[in-house]
Amino acid sequence: MASRSDDSPKRSGENRLTAFLPADRLRAFADGVFAIVITLLVLELPVPEATDDLLWALLEAWPDFLAYVISFVFIGGFWITHSSITRLTEHEDGVTFRMTLVMLFFVSLLPFSTSLMAKHLVGPGSRLSVFIYGLDLLFASFMLDRIMRYLARRPELLVDGLAEEDLRIMEHRRLYGIMLDGVGVLLALILPRVAIAIYVLVAFYFILQPLFYGRTLKHSLEKQGE
Amino acid sequence: MASRSDDSPKRSGENRLTAFLPADRLRAFADGVFAIVITLLVLELPVPEATDDLLWALLEAWPDFLAYVISFVFIGGFWITHSSITRLTEHEDGVTFRMTLVMLFFVSLLPFSTSLMAKHLVGPGSRLSVFIYGLDLLFASFMLDRIMRYLARRPELLVDGLAEEDLRIMEHRRLYGIMLDGVGVLLALILPRVAIAIYVLVAFYFILQPLFYGRTLKHSLEKQGE
Amino acid sequence: MASRSDDSPKRSGENRLTAFLPADRLRAFADGVFAIVITLLVLELPVPEATDDLLWALLEAWPDFLAYVISFVFIGGFWITHSSITRLTEHEDGVTFRMTLVMLFFVSLLPFSTSLMAKHLVGPGSRLSVFIYGLDLLFASFMLDRIMRYLARRPELLVDGLAEEDLRIMEHRRLYGIMLDGVGVLLALILPRVAIAIYVLVAFYFILQPLFYGRTLKHSLEKQGE
Amino acid sequence: MASRSDDSPKRSGENRLTAFLPADRLRAFADGVFAIVITLLVLELPVPEATDDLLWALLEAWPDFLAYVISFVFIGGFWITHSSITRLTEHEDGVTFRMTLVMLFFVSLLPFSTSLMAKHLVGPGSRLSVFIYGLDLLFASFMLDRIMRYLARRPELLVDGLAEEDLRIMEHRRLYGIMLDGVGVLLALILPRVAIAIYVLVAFYFILQPLFYGRTLKHSLEKQGE
Repeated sequence: MASRSDDSPKRSGENRLTAFLPADRLRAFADGVFAIVITLLVLELPVPEATDDLLWALLEAWPDFLAYVISFVFIGGFWITHSSITRLTEHEDGVTFRMTLVMLFFVSLLPFSTSLMAKHLVGPGSRLSVFIYGLDLLFASFMLDRIMRYLARRPELLVDGLAEEDLRIMEHRRLYGIMLDGVGVLLALILPRVAIAIYVLVAFYFILQPLFYGRTLKHSLEKQGE
Repeated sequence: MASRSDDSPKRSGENRLTAFLPADRLRAFADGVFAIVITLLVLELPVPEATDDLLWALLEAWPDFLAYVISFVFIGGFWITHSSITRLTEHEDGVTFRMTLVMLFFVSLLPFSTSLMAKHLVGPGSRLSVFIYGLDLLFASFMLDRIMRYLARRPELLVDGLAEEDLRIMEHRRLYGIMLDGVGVLLALILPRVAIAIYVLVAFYFILQPLFYGRTLKHSLEKQGE
Repeated sequence: MASRSDDSPKRSGENRLTAFLPADRLRAFADGVFAIVITLLVLELPVPEATDDLLWALLEAWPDFLAYVISFVFIGGFWITHSSITRLTEHEDGVTFRMTLVMLFFVSLLPFSTSLMAKHLVGPGSRLSVFIYGLDLLFASFMLDRIMRYLARRPELLVDGLAEEDLRIMEHRRLYGIMLDGVGVLLALILPRVAIAIYVLVAFYFILQPLFYGRTLKHSLEKQGE
Repeated sequence: MASRSDDSPKRSGENRLTAFLPADRLRAFADGVFAIVITLLVLELPVPEATDDLLWALLEAWPDFLAYVISFVFIGGFWITHSSITRLTEHEDGVTFRMTLVMLFFVSLLPFSTSLMAKHLVGPGSRLSVFIYGLDLLFASFMLDRIMRYLARRPELLVDGLAEEDLRIMEHRRLYGIMLDGVGVLLALILPRVAIAIYVLVAFYFILQPLFYGRTLKHSLEKQGE
């Protein structure tokens, strides 16, 4: 809080990337990328060719469906978390624009890494493909964490002083997920199927995370004008 | 209405998923997914290769065009209904974000299930593919219904008390469509083509539903600032 | 103008589809579909496989590039016209939502019909494919015209009385394009390449149309808050 | 500044394309196209088929990944620059709508030209494909420059007089990037790999450009209501 009065009038590195940029465009672009990636995933699901045993053909494609669901839940969780963040920010600057772009880079790679894992889950490439997929998720999660950490130190971008604290709490809670995800990624090189079980766990942890804690966020009950 | 004064200051389960989230992002994301899914469908339409009888080749692809139209009308109906709902809501919370995500999960599966049905409508897989397609539509419709039901019990998320009643009326009317859809899904396992006829009926019922009732919604004529 | 005072308090057919719906969602959805269709078109452009004469392979794909450009200009024109319309409207109702959906149906078919024409422009299917492509454009243009005509009779949806007149002028000017397009579609069955020349003409007429008339629109110079 | 008072009441060519159009739709459409193109790129990344040496198969696809990253950074830079521009504009007119459409035409071609370069980077088509790719980037950059130049002469479209100056400074800085890009395009016909190195340089120059200059923009620190 003390840092606030210091930063506000003359920000450190103020002639760099910290110029304000329009917050509505960052949100529209992020929503666009999240929505497109989450729907592009479906194009990777294989529609079986005409066959006498369609049910069997569909069941055989289980790695595709499993990978699809994990990615969908992860992206949904990213979107909800990102929405929670932008609820606490009033302005965006050149740094948050660029950090968001890096985060979305890893998100937009997901149709590729999801398809890679789905195709190689059964076979000699399972270790590497599960490793790459987990790494992609980890980098995207990590960038989201970095955005929160950056914003928590930039009171002039936030709606008020309480937002700072909320961001720190949210970031702290996400750390457990990121650490677990990191364990999964390492395990992928030895036990790829265990790694996938961990990814599923982390995906649901990220999306249902408020369930595991009593309310401590200050802003969560307050209504906000749009 | 009585429940309103009870809920507003201290909501049941308040340290869970009920923290407010930005309504504009839920709408932008939903509009994005609806718009993307409705346009991705076209990628599944087969463009016949160079041929001497193009007309015949196009006519032979009738299952693709039929499936395309049904899905387009259904998604259009989901979008209009979802817009009607958000017209009555002033805030969104963690529950509506997650319910919307589940609803959009089934919507974003539609390019897959549409293509599955189109490919197998003529052949041994017709029963299963029409069943899966109908189930996908049913789950999406059902989630939309759940969202309305949840909102009708959350006056603090709505624009005013009349919205509660309107939501109940809308949800009630949609129930007929959902029940008919359910009948279609069951029939798919015996008479797939009859099931498709029912899906067409339900699609047009959902999108033209206000035509079948006299106006009883309270909010429908009132102008609303954006 | 006289009809205004009659319609405003008690609209004809008021218990039907004329309930107000949120204007921002109609715009977001339309912008989404326009943006997606205009970018999906590029997926139909054939990337030549590794070859010794890449330039020749690209030149041989001229029908794909020609069809791409025509569709791009048409969709761009639809988007600009639709933006001009929504500039004059303050509210949307169930009818404009459904008319917009029908218009977007024909727009979202364009990646299919564009690809159909590109593939069959050289060969026995040229007449039919150019005919279907033109018909798709014609139906989309026609629906846009219908939307303008509907709005011009609904003063309660418009920003003010001048908007009515502007809509009638805009619609009138577009009629020439639609009629010329209709001629092109009929010609497609006899002289497909002449038809394409007409489509190009109409595409540029629609997008550059204000250049051909002196300013008569009332609202065009006025600034508008967002 | 002197030109301002002259232009404002009676603009030159006022009965042409200069009618005001809704700024929010231009932004939504541009955000949509940027978001879609940036995520469509991933569809061109080749997922190796089941193989004993997945790592090697991925490494062999390096031209695809390189082209993907360059295009992603370029589009990200276009988006940030376009956001900076719309931050300084209060209104849009028929000319900025059409210029934006031309700019987005070259942006939406990028999935094609990226894929073309990726496929032909190794082989006899490398010169032509690197040339076409660079030309596509150059035209998109050039149109963005034209938009800034047009706006700088239209004070009635800007938030205030300082915006004019900021646009001129931004445009001036971008010129270096465009000139360097032009050199790269010409070099592509002789030394395609050197040209790619230049494209990488330009991509990072465009996205990190504020780092290379001390703050001189007037508007950059000022907060702006949304």
